[in-house]
Amino acid sequence: MRGEAVPRFGRSMDFAFRPIGTLRTCFPEKLGIPRQSGLAGAARGILRFSPDRPAQTWRQALSGLDGFGHVWVTFVFDRAVVQGWKSLVRPPRLDGKEKVGVFATRSPHRPNFLGLSLCRLDSVDLDTPSVELSGVDILDNTPVLDIRPYHPENDVPRSEVRGGWLDRAAEPVLSVRWSDGARDSMERFLPEAARLGMPEYSPDQAALLVDQLVGLDPRPAHRRGRDGDWYMRVLSFDVRVRVEQGIARIREVRG
Amino acid sequence: MRGEAVPRFGRSMDFAFRPIGTLRTCFPEKLGIPRQSGLAGAARGILRFSPDRPAQTWRQALSGLDGFGHVWVTFVFDRAVVQGWKSLVRPPRLDGKEKVGVFATRSPHRPNFLGLSLCRLDSVDLDTPSVELSGVDILDNTPVLDIRPYHPENDVPRSEVRGGWLDRAAEPVLSVRWSDGARDSMERFLPEAARLGMPEYSPDQAALLVDQLVGLDPRPAHRRGRDGDWYMRVLSFDVRVRVEQGIARIREVRG
Repeated sequence: MRGEAVPRFGRSMDFAFRPIGTLRTCFPEKLGIPRQSGLAGAARGILRFSPDRPAQTWRQALSGLDGFGHVWVTFVFDRAVVQGWKSLVRPPRLDGKEKVGVFATRSPHRPNFLGLSLCRLDSVDLDTPSVELSGVDILDNTPVLDIRPYHPENDVPRSEVRGGWLDRAAEPVLSVRWSDGARDSMERFLPEAARLGMPEYSPDQAALLVDQLVGLDPRPAHRRGRDGDWYMRVLSFDVRVRVEQGIARIREVRG
Repeated sequence: MRGEAVPRFGRSMDFAFRPIGTLRTCFPEKLGIPRQSGLAGAARGILRFSPDRPAQTWRQALSGLDGFGHVWVTFVFDRAVVQGWKSLVRPPRLDGKEKVGVFATRSPHRPNFLGLSLCRLDSVDLDTPSVELSGVDILDNTPVLDIRPYHPENDVPRSEVRGGWLDRAAEPVLSVRWSDGARDSMERFLPEAARLGMPEYSPDQAALLVDQLVGLDPRPAHRRGRDGDWYMRVLSFDVRVRVEQGIARIREVRG
Protein backbone atom coordinates (compact mmCIF):
# COMPACT_ATOMS: atom_id res chain seq x y z
CA MET A 1 0.00 0.00 0.00
CA ARG A 2 1.35 3.34 -0.99
CA GLY A 3 -1.48 5.29 0.71
CA GLU A 4 -0.71 6.36 4.26
CA ALA A 5 -2.88 4.44 6.68
CA VAL A 6 -2.18 6.69 9.64
CA PRO A 7 -3.44 10.25 9.55
CA ARG A 8 -0.96 12.79 10.85
CA PHE A 9 -2.97 13.58 13.94
CA GLY A 10 -1.07 14.06 17.14
CA ARG A 11 2.11 15.00 15.32
CA SER A 12 2.17 18.72 15.99
CA MET A 13 4.59 19.82 13.34
CA ASP A 14 5.59 23.43 13.41
CA PHE A 15 6.80 25.04 10.20
CA ALA A 16 9.29 27.90 10.31
CA PHE A 17 8.84 30.63 7.72
CA ARG A 18 11.18 33.45 6.89
CA PRO A 19 9.81 36.59 5.22
CA ILE A 20 10.82 37.16 1.59
CA GLY A 21 10.74 40.90 2.32
CA THR A 22 9.09 43.81 4.05
CA LEU A 23 6.10 45.73 2.74
CA ARG A 24 6.26 49.47 3.28
CA THR A 25 2.82 51.11 2.93
CA CYS A 26 1.03 54.40 3.53
CA PHE A 27 -0.53 52.97 6.74
CA PRO A 28 1.58 53.61 9.86
CA GLU A 29 -1.40 52.69 12.10
CA LYS A 30 -4.29 50.27 12.01
CA LEU A 31 -7.07 52.89 12.08
CA GLY A 32 -7.85 53.97 8.54
CA ILE A 33 -6.80 50.80 6.74
CA PRO A 34 -9.62 49.72 4.40
CA ARG A 35 -11.36 46.56 5.51
CA GLN A 36 -10.37 44.78 2.31
CA SER A 37 -7.81 45.18 -0.43
CA GLY A 38 -8.92 47.03 -3.55
CA LEU A 39 -11.27 49.43 -1.72
CA ALA A 40 -8.75 52.29 -1.88
CA GLY A 41 -6.91 52.15 -5.19
CA ALA A 42 -4.63 55.02 -4.15
CA ALA A 43 -3.29 53.05 -1.17
CA ARG A 44 0.17 51.94 -2.24
CA GLY A 45 2.92 49.67 -1.01
CA ILE A 46 6.50 48.74 -1.90
CA LEU A 47 7.68 45.21 -1.22
CA ARG A 48 11.45 45.31 -0.73
CA PHE A 49 13.09 41.91 -0.82
CA SER A 50 15.14 40.63 2.06
CA PRO A 51 18.94 40.94 2.04
CA ASP A 52 19.02 37.39 3.47
CA ARG A 53 19.35 36.17 -0.13
CA PRO A 54 21.45 37.53 -3.00
CA ALA A 55 19.60 40.16 -5.04
CA GLN A 56 20.20 37.99 -8.12
CA THR A 57 18.11 35.18 -6.61
CA TRP A 58 15.12 37.52 -6.13
CA ARG A 59 15.60 38.92 -9.65
CA GLN A 60 15.30 35.43 -11.11
CA ALA A 61 12.32 34.60 -8.90
CA LEU A 62 10.53 37.73 -10.18
CA SER A 63 11.10 37.17 -13.90
CA GLY A 64 7.83 37.00 -15.82
CA LEU A 65 5.79 38.49 -12.98
CA ASP A 66 5.45 41.86 -14.74
CA GLY A 67 3.07 40.35 -17.31
CA PHE A 68 0.41 39.94 -14.64
CA GLY A 69 -2.01 42.66 -13.55
CA HIS A 70 -2.62 41.55 -9.97
CA VAL A 71 -0.95 39.45 -7.30
CA TRP A 72 -1.94 37.63 -4.13
CA VAL A 73 0.22 38.74 -1.23
CA THR A 74 0.58 36.35 1.71
CA PHE A 75 1.81 38.12 4.83
CA VAL A 76 1.92 37.93 8.62
CA PHE A 77 -0.36 40.09 10.79
CA ASP A 78 2.66 40.50 13.04
CA ARG A 79 1.20 43.32 15.16
CA ALA A 80 -1.79 41.08 16.03
CA VAL A 81 0.36 38.27 17.46
CA VAL A 82 0.73 39.79 20.95
CA GLN A 83 -3.05 39.73 21.45
CA GLY A 84 -3.34 36.10 20.38
CA TRP A 85 -6.04 34.61 18.17
CA LYS A 86 -9.74 34.41 18.92
CA SER A 87 -12.16 31.68 17.84
CA LEU A 88 -15.00 34.25 17.68
CA VAL A 89 -14.62 37.81 16.37
CA ARG A 90 -16.88 40.84 15.81
CA PRO A 91 -16.56 41.92 12.15
CA PRO A 92 -16.72 45.72 11.72
CA ARG A 93 -19.09 45.24 8.79
CA LEU A 94 -21.69 43.75 11.13
CA ASP A 95 -21.41 46.94 13.25
CA GLY A 96 -19.52 45.03 15.93
CA LYS A 97 -22.79 43.69 17.30
CA GLU A 98 -22.52 40.06 16.22
CA LYS A 99 -19.87 37.43 16.75
CA VAL A 100 -18.76 35.18 13.89
CA GLY A 101 -16.25 32.34 13.79
CA VAL A 102 -12.79 33.60 12.83
CA PHE A 103 -12.61 31.20 9.84
CA ALA A 104 -15.73 32.92 8.44
CA THR A 105 -13.83 36.24 8.42
CA ARG A 106 -10.59 37.87 7.29
CA SER A 107 -9.82 39.01 10.86
CA PRO A 108 -6.10 39.29 11.73
CA HIS A 109 -6.76 37.44 15.00
CA ARG A 110 -6.65 34.02 13.35
CA PRO A 111 -4.56 30.91 13.96
CA ASN A 112 -1.14 31.49 12.38
CA PHE A 113 -1.92 35.20 11.81
CA LEU A 114 -1.71 34.79 8.03
CA GLY A 115 -3.00 37.58 5.85
CA LEU A 116 -3.98 37.36 2.18
CA SER A 117 -4.62 40.39 -0.05
CA LEU A 118 -5.30 40.80 -3.75
CA CYS A 119 -3.30 43.82 -4.91
CA ARG A 120 -2.73 45.54 -8.20
CA LEU A 121 0.78 45.00 -9.52
CA ASP A 122 2.03 48.44 -10.60
CA SER A 123 5.66 47.64 -11.37
CA VAL A 124 8.50 45.22 -10.81
CA ASP A 125 11.89 46.84 -10.21
CA LEU A 126 14.54 44.18 -10.77
CA ASP A 127 17.29 46.59 -9.83
CA THR A 128 16.40 47.19 -6.18
CA PRO A 129 14.76 44.48 -6.23
CA SER A 130 11.27 45.56 -5.23
CA VAL A 131 7.64 45.38 -6.33
CA GLU A 132 5.15 48.26 -6.31
CA LEU A 133 1.56 47.46 -5.40
CA SER A 134 -1.68 49.40 -5.04
CA GLY A 135 -5.05 48.75 -3.46
CA VAL A 136 -3.20 47.59 -0.34
CA ASP A 137 -4.91 47.12 3.04
CA ILE A 138 -1.75 46.25 4.96
CA LEU A 139 0.14 47.97 7.81
CA ASP A 140 3.49 49.60 7.07
CA ASN A 141 6.49 47.35 7.77
CA THR A 142 4.62 44.07 7.38
CA PRO A 143 6.64 40.87 6.81
CA VAL A 144 5.63 39.21 3.53
CA LEU A 145 5.93 35.44 3.03
CA ASP A 146 4.92 35.03 -0.62
CA ILE A 147 3.53 36.65 -3.76
CA ARG A 148 1.93 34.85 -6.68
CA PRO A 149 -0.03 35.92 -9.77
CA TYR A 150 -3.80 36.33 -9.84
CA HIS A 151 -5.06 33.81 -12.42
CA PRO A 152 -8.05 35.23 -14.30
CA GLU A 153 -9.21 31.69 -15.20
CA ASN A 154 -8.66 29.89 -11.94
CA ASP A 155 -9.27 32.40 -9.18
CA VAL A 156 -12.98 32.76 -9.85
CA PRO A 157 -15.40 30.08 -8.61
CA ARG A 158 -16.90 27.86 -11.31
CA SER A 159 -20.09 27.21 -9.37
CA GLU A 160 -22.68 29.21 -7.45
CA VAL A 161 -21.10 31.86 -5.22
CA ARG A 162 -22.56 32.49 -1.76
CA GLY A 163 -21.32 35.42 0.28
CA GLY A 164 -22.43 34.31 3.78
CA TRP A 165 -22.96 37.05 6.34
CA LEU A 166 -21.29 39.57 3.99
CA ASP A 167 -24.46 39.69 1.90
CA ARG A 168 -26.16 41.79 4.60
CA ALA A 169 -23.25 44.14 5.35
CA ALA A 170 -22.71 47.09 3.02
CA GLU A 171 -19.59 49.25 3.00
CA PRO A 172 -20.21 52.78 4.35
CA VAL A 173 -19.39 55.82 2.28
CA LEU A 174 -18.97 59.46 3.35
CA SER A 175 -18.63 62.49 1.06
CA VAL A 176 -15.30 64.21 1.61
CA ARG A 177 -14.49 67.95 1.53
CA TRP A 178 -11.22 69.78 2.23
CA SER A 179 -10.95 72.93 4.35
CA ASP A 180 -8.86 75.82 3.06
CA GLY A 181 -5.20 75.27 3.77
CA ALA A 182 -5.48 71.59 4.79
CA ARG A 183 -4.23 70.37 1.44
CA ASP A 184 -1.30 72.79 1.39
CA SER A 185 -0.15 71.68 4.82
CA MET A 186 -0.42 68.04 3.77
CA GLU A 187 1.95 68.59 0.87
CA ARG A 188 4.73 69.63 3.21
CA PHE A 189 4.83 66.17 4.81
CA LEU A 190 5.16 64.08 1.66
CA PRO A 191 8.97 64.21 1.29
CA GLU A 192 9.34 63.02 4.88
CA ALA A 193 7.20 59.90 4.29
CA ALA A 194 9.36 58.97 1.30
CA ARG A 195 12.51 59.54 3.34
CA LEU A 196 11.17 57.09 5.96
CA GLY A 197 10.92 54.43 3.23
CA MET A 198 7.16 54.68 2.63
CA PRO A 199 5.77 54.92 -0.93
CA GLU A 200 6.28 58.24 -2.70
CA TYR A 201 3.13 60.29 -3.33
CA SER A 202 2.65 63.43 -5.39
CA PRO A 203 0.30 66.04 -3.80
CA ASP A 204 -2.57 64.96 -6.10
CA GLN A 205 -2.03 61.29 -5.37
CA ALA A 206 -1.92 61.92 -1.63
CA ALA A 207 -5.13 63.97 -1.76
CA LEU A 208 -6.86 61.12 -3.62
CA LEU A 209 -5.58 58.65 -1.01
CA VAL A 210 -6.99 60.74 1.83
CA ASP A 211 -10.32 61.15 -0.03
CA GLN A 212 -10.65 57.38 -0.43
CA LEU A 213 -9.64 56.49 3.13
CA VAL A 214 -11.76 59.12 4.88
CA GLY A 215 -14.71 58.28 2.60
CA LEU A 216 -14.67 54.65 3.84
CA ASP A 217 -15.16 55.94 7.44
CA PRO A 218 -12.68 53.81 9.36
CA ARG A 219 -14.10 54.58 12.80
CA PRO A 220 -15.18 51.79 15.16
CA ALA A 221 -18.54 50.23 14.37
CA HIS A 222 -20.56 52.00 17.06
CA ARG A 223 -19.49 55.46 15.82
CA ARG A 224 -19.35 54.85 12.08
CA GLY A 225 -21.44 57.24 9.96
CA ARG A 226 -22.23 59.43 13.00
CA ASP A 227 -21.48 63.12 13.41
CA GLY A 228 -18.30 63.88 15.34
CA ASP A 229 -14.60 64.68 15.22
CA TRP A 230 -11.90 62.05 14.64
CA TYR A 231 -8.49 61.69 13.09
CA MET A 232 -6.41 59.08 11.32
CA ARG A 233 -2.72 58.80 10.54
CA VAL A 234 -1.68 58.40 6.88
CA LEU A 235 1.92 58.29 5.65
CA SER A 236 3.68 60.64 8.11
CA PHE A 237 0.82 62.97 9.04
CA ASP A 238 -2.48 63.12 10.95
CA VAL A 239 -5.70 63.93 9.11
CA ARG A 240 -8.27 65.65 11.37
CA VAL A 241 -11.85 65.18 10.26
CA ARG A 242 -15.26 66.50 11.28
CA VAL A 243 -18.37 64.62 10.16
CA GLU A 244 -21.65 66.51 9.89
CA GLN A 245 -24.75 65.14 8.15
CA GLY A 246 -22.87 62.52 6.13
CA ILE A 247 -20.17 64.93 4.97
CA ALA A 248 -16.60 64.46 6.22
CA ARG A 249 -14.67 67.73 6.25
CA ILE A 250 -10.88 67.54 6.46
CA ARG A 251 -10.19 70.35 8.92
CA GLU A 252 -6.46 70.11 9.38
CA VAL A 253 -3.37 68.08 8.51
CA ARG A 254 -0.62 67.87 11.16
CA GLY A 255 2.71 66.17 11.68
CA MET B 1 7.27 60.54 15.13
CA ARG B 2 5.10 57.52 15.28
CA GLY B 3 6.28 56.19 11.90
CA GLU B 4 9.15 53.75 12.11
CA ALA B 5 12.26 55.35 10.71
CA VAL B 6 14.23 52.13 10.43
CA PRO B 7 13.05 49.51 7.94
CA ARG B 8 13.17 45.99 9.26
CA PHE B 9 15.94 44.87 6.97
CA GLY B 10 18.59 42.68 8.41
CA ARG B 11 16.34 41.37 11.14
CA SER B 12 15.68 37.88 9.87
CA MET B 13 12.61 37.02 11.84
CA ASP B 14 11.33 33.51 11.51
CA PHE B 15 7.68 32.81 12.22
CA ALA B 16 6.57 29.43 13.51
CA PHE B 17 3.26 28.13 12.23
CA ARG B 18 1.28 25.15 13.48
CA PRO B 19 -1.23 23.48 11.16
CA ILE B 20 -4.91 23.91 12.06
CA GLY B 21 -5.51 20.44 10.64
CA THR B 22 -4.76 17.86 8.00
CA LEU B 23 -6.38 17.69 4.58
CA ARG B 24 -7.19 14.19 3.38
CA THR B 25 -7.79 14.08 -0.37
CA CYS B 26 -8.22 11.61 -3.25
CA PHE B 27 -4.60 12.26 -4.34
CA PRO B 28 -2.08 9.86 -2.75
CA GLU B 29 0.58 10.89 -5.30
CA LYS B 30 1.59 14.02 -7.15
CA LEU B 31 0.97 12.67 -10.66
CA GLY B 32 -2.65 13.26 -11.60
CA ILE B 33 -3.31 16.30 -9.43
CA PRO B 34 -4.87 19.03 -11.59
CA ARG B 35 -2.58 21.98 -12.16
CA GLN B 36 -5.04 24.34 -10.45
CA SER B 37 -7.96 24.08 -8.07
CA GLY B 38 -11.42 23.96 -9.63
CA LEU B 39 -10.34 22.03 -12.76
CA ALA B 40 -11.70 18.72 -11.40
CA GLY B 41 -14.90 19.40 -9.47
CA ALA B 42 -15.12 15.74 -8.41
CA ALA B 43 -11.77 15.93 -6.59
CA ARG B 44 -12.68 16.08 -2.92
CA GLY B 45 -10.98 16.69 0.40
CA ILE B 46 -11.80 16.56 4.11
CA LEU B 47 -10.05 19.00 6.42
CA ARG B 48 -9.94 17.44 9.88
CA PHE B 49 -9.00 19.86 12.62
CA SER B 50 -6.05 19.25 14.88
CA PRO B 51 -6.51 17.68 18.32
CA ASP B 52 -3.95 20.23 19.58
CA ARG B 53 -6.91 22.45 20.46
CA PRO B 54 -10.24 21.56 22.09
CA ALA B 55 -12.90 20.63 19.52
CA GLN B 56 -15.10 23.38 20.97
CA THR B 57 -12.53 26.02 19.94
CA TRP B 58 -12.63 24.84 16.31
CA ARG B 59 -16.45 24.70 16.42
CA GLN B 60 -16.58 28.35 17.43
CA ALA B 61 -13.97 29.33 14.84
CA LEU B 62 -16.09 27.66 12.12
CA SER B 63 -19.42 29.28 13.01
CA GLY B 64 -20.87 31.23 10.11
CA LEU B 65 -18.56 29.64 7.55
CA ASP B 66 -21.34 27.44 6.12
CA GLY B 67 -23.02 30.49 4.54
CA PHE B 68 -20.14 30.81 2.07
CA GLY B 69 -19.84 28.91 -1.18
CA HIS B 70 -16.06 28.81 -1.54
CA VAL B 71 -13.00 29.12 0.65
CA TRP B 72 -9.32 29.91 0.22
CA VAL B 73 -7.17 27.19 1.73
CA THR B 74 -3.62 28.10 2.78
CA PHE B 75 -1.44 25.03 3.16
CA VAL B 76 2.16 23.82 3.17
CA PHE B 77 3.64 21.97 0.18
CA ASP B 78 5.34 19.77 2.76
CA ARG B 79 6.48 17.07 0.30
CA ALA B 80 8.33 19.75 -1.74
CA VAL B 81 10.42 20.93 1.21
CA VAL B 82 13.14 18.27 0.87
CA GLN B 83 13.96 19.44 -2.67
CA GLY B 84 14.24 23.08 -1.60
CA TRP B 85 12.92 26.08 -3.50
CA LYS B 86 14.01 27.29 -6.93
CA SER B 87 14.15 30.86 -8.18
CA LEU B 88 13.36 29.66 -11.74
CA VAL B 89 10.87 26.89 -12.58
CA ARG B 90 9.49 25.23 -15.72
CA PRO B 91 5.67 25.48 -15.65
CA PRO B 92 3.97 22.37 -17.12
CA ARG B 93 1.61 24.65 -19.03
CA LEU B 94 4.53 26.01 -21.04
CA ASP B 95 5.37 22.40 -21.99
CA GLY B 96 8.36 22.46 -19.66
CA LYS B 97 10.39 24.26 -22.33
CA GLU B 98 10.62 27.71 -20.74
CA LYS B 99 11.80 28.90 -17.37
CA VAL B 100 9.82 31.48 -15.43
CA GLY B 101 10.49 33.13 -12.04
CA VAL B 102 8.86 31.16 -9.23
CA PHE B 103 6.88 34.25 -8.08
CA ALA B 104 5.26 34.35 -11.54
CA THR B 105 3.91 30.80 -10.93
CA ARG B 106 2.03 28.65 -8.43
CA SER B 107 4.89 26.15 -8.27
CA PRO B 108 5.29 24.31 -4.94
CA HIS B 109 9.04 24.98 -5.03
CA ARG B 110 8.67 28.51 -3.67
CA PRO B 111 10.14 30.28 -0.65
CA ASN B 112 8.18 29.17 2.42
CA PHE B 113 6.41 26.40 0.41
CA LEU B 114 3.02 28.03 0.91
CA GLY B 115 0.11 26.80 -1.18
CA LEU B 116 -3.15 28.64 -1.87
CA SER B 117 -6.22 27.00 -3.41
CA LEU B 118 -9.76 28.20 -4.04
CA CYS B 119 -12.06 25.28 -3.18
CA ARG B 120 -15.79 24.76 -3.12
CA LEU B 121 -17.13 24.48 0.42
CA ASP B 122 -19.44 21.45 0.41
CA SER B 123 -20.19 21.16 4.12
CA VAL B 124 -19.08 22.08 7.62
CA ASP B 125 -19.38 19.30 10.18
CA LEU B 126 -19.21 20.90 13.62
CA ASP B 127 -19.40 17.52 15.31
CA THR B 128 -16.10 16.01 14.08
CA PRO B 129 -15.09 18.94 13.53
CA SER B 130 -14.22 18.87 9.83
CA VAL B 131 -14.89 20.66 6.56
CA GLU B 132 -15.64 19.00 3.21
CA LEU B 133 -14.20 20.62 0.09
CA SER B 134 -14.25 19.93 -3.64
CA GLY B 135 -12.27 21.09 -6.64
CA VAL B 136 -9.13 20.35 -4.63
CA ASP B 137 -5.65 20.16 -6.19
CA ILE B 138 -3.82 19.14 -3.03
CA LEU B 139 -1.91 16.00 -2.00
CA ASP B 140 -3.46 13.68 0.58
CA ASN B 141 -2.30 14.35 4.16
CA THR B 142 -1.36 18.00 3.58
CA PRO B 143 -0.94 20.29 6.60
CA VAL B 144 -3.36 23.24 6.41
CA LEU B 145 -2.55 26.58 8.03
CA ASP B 146 -5.72 28.58 7.39
CA ILE B 147 -9.10 28.76 5.67
CA ARG B 148 -11.06 31.92 4.94
CA PRO B 149 -14.15 32.75 2.86
CA TYR B 150 -14.05 33.71 -0.79
CA HIS B 151 -15.49 37.24 -0.98
CA PRO B 152 -17.46 37.70 -4.20
CA GLU B 153 -16.99 41.50 -3.99
CA ASN B 154 -13.37 41.73 -2.97
CA ASP B 155 -11.60 38.78 -4.55
CA VAL B 156 -12.02 39.99 -8.12
CA PRO B 157 -9.73 42.71 -9.49
CA ARG B 158 -11.36 46.13 -9.98
CA SER B 159 -9.05 47.10 -12.81
CA GLU B 160 -7.70 45.58 -16.01
CA VAL B 161 -6.68 41.93 -15.59
CA ARG B 162 -3.54 40.68 -17.32
CA GLY B 163 -2.74 36.97 -17.28
CA GLY B 164 0.99 37.08 -18.07
CA TRP B 165 2.47 33.99 -19.65
CA LEU B 166 -0.73 32.03 -18.88
CA ASP B 167 -2.46 33.76 -21.79
CA ARG B 168 -0.52 31.57 -24.25
CA ALA B 169 -0.87 28.26 -22.39
CA ALA B 170 -4.14 26.35 -22.80
CA GLU B 171 -5.18 23.39 -20.66
CA PRO B 172 -5.08 20.07 -22.55
CA VAL B 173 -8.16 17.86 -22.76
CA LEU B 174 -8.46 14.18 -23.69
CA SER B 175 -11.69 12.24 -24.34
CA VAL B 176 -12.05 9.40 -21.85
CA ARG B 177 -13.52 5.89 -22.40
CA TRP B 178 -13.75 2.93 -20.02
CA SER B 179 -12.89 -0.64 -20.97
CA ASP B 180 -15.28 -3.44 -19.99
CA GLY B 181 -14.74 -4.45 -16.41
CA ALA B 182 -12.49 -1.53 -15.42
CA ARG B 183 -15.32 0.30 -13.67
CA ASP B 184 -16.44 -2.80 -11.78
CA SER B 185 -12.97 -3.45 -10.47
CA MET B 186 -12.63 0.19 -9.39
CA GLU B 187 -15.76 -0.07 -7.25
CA ARG B 188 -14.17 -2.77 -5.10
CA PHE B 189 -11.47 -0.36 -3.88
CA LEU B 190 -13.72 2.46 -2.70
CA PRO B 191 -14.42 1.17 0.83
CA GLU B 192 -10.70 0.79 1.45
CA ALA B 193 -9.96 4.44 0.58
CA ALA B 194 -12.62 5.58 3.05
CA ARG B 195 -11.19 3.28 5.70
CA LEU B 196 -7.77 4.93 5.18
CA GLY B 197 -9.36 8.30 6.01
CA MET B 198 -9.69 9.59 2.45
CA PRO B 199 -12.97 11.13 1.21
CA GLU B 200 -15.84 8.68 0.62
CA TYR B 201 -16.86 8.21 -3.02
CA SER B 202 -19.87 6.38 -4.50
CA PRO B 203 -19.07 4.37 -7.67
CA ASP B 204 -20.60 7.10 -9.89
CA GLN B 205 -18.68 9.85 -8.11
CA ALA B 206 -15.42 7.93 -8.40
CA ALA B 207 -15.98 7.31 -12.13
CA LEU B 208 -16.57 11.04 -12.65
CA LEU B 209 -13.39 11.82 -10.70
CA VAL B 210 -11.34 9.46 -12.89
CA ASP B 211 -12.94 10.92 -16.05
CA GLN B 212 -11.98 14.44 -15.02
CA LEU B 213 -8.43 13.61 -13.93
CA VAL B 214 -7.52 11.43 -16.91
CA GLY B 215 -9.11 14.00 -19.27
CA LEU B 216 -6.69 16.68 -18.01
CA ASP B 217 -3.76 14.47 -19.09
CA PRO B 218 -1.43 14.77 -16.10
CA ARG B 219 1.65 13.38 -17.87
CA PRO B 220 4.91 15.31 -17.99
CA ALA B 221 4.99 18.12 -20.54
CA HIS B 222 7.09 16.32 -23.19
CA ARG B 223 4.62 13.39 -23.34
CA ARG B 224 1.34 15.21 -22.85
CA GLY B 225 -1.31 14.60 -25.52
CA ARG B 226 0.83 11.89 -27.17
CA ASP B 227 -0.15 8.26 -27.79
CA GLY B 228 1.12 5.83 -25.16
CA ASP B 229 0.41 3.89 -21.97
CA TRP B 230 0.57 5.46 -18.53
CA TYR B 231 -1.03 5.14 -15.13
CA MET B 232 -1.96 7.33 -12.19
CA ARG B 233 -2.90 6.58 -8.61
CA VAL B 234 -6.27 7.88 -7.33
CA LEU B 235 -7.69 7.17 -3.86
CA SER B 236 -6.37 3.65 -3.15
CA PHE B 237 -6.06 2.30 -6.69
CA ASP B 238 -4.05 2.60 -9.92
CA VAL B 239 -5.78 3.67 -13.13
CA ARG B 240 -4.04 2.26 -16.24
CA VAL B 241 -4.61 4.29 -19.37
CA ARG B 242 -3.83 3.94 -23.06
CA VAL B 243 -3.96 7.07 -25.25
CA GLU B 244 -4.60 6.62 -28.98
CA GLN B 245 -5.48 9.49 -31.30
CA GLY B 246 -6.62 11.86 -28.55
CA ILE B 247 -8.76 9.25 -26.82
CA ALA B 248 -7.73 7.99 -23.37
CA ARG B 249 -9.02 4.46 -22.72
CA ILE B 250 -9.07 3.25 -19.11
CA ARG B 251 -7.82 -0.29 -19.56
CA GLU B 252 -7.63 -1.53 -16.02
CA VAL B 253 -7.98 -0.52 -12.38
CA ARG B 254 -5.68 -2.23 -9.86
CA GLY B 255 -4.89 -2.08 -6.14
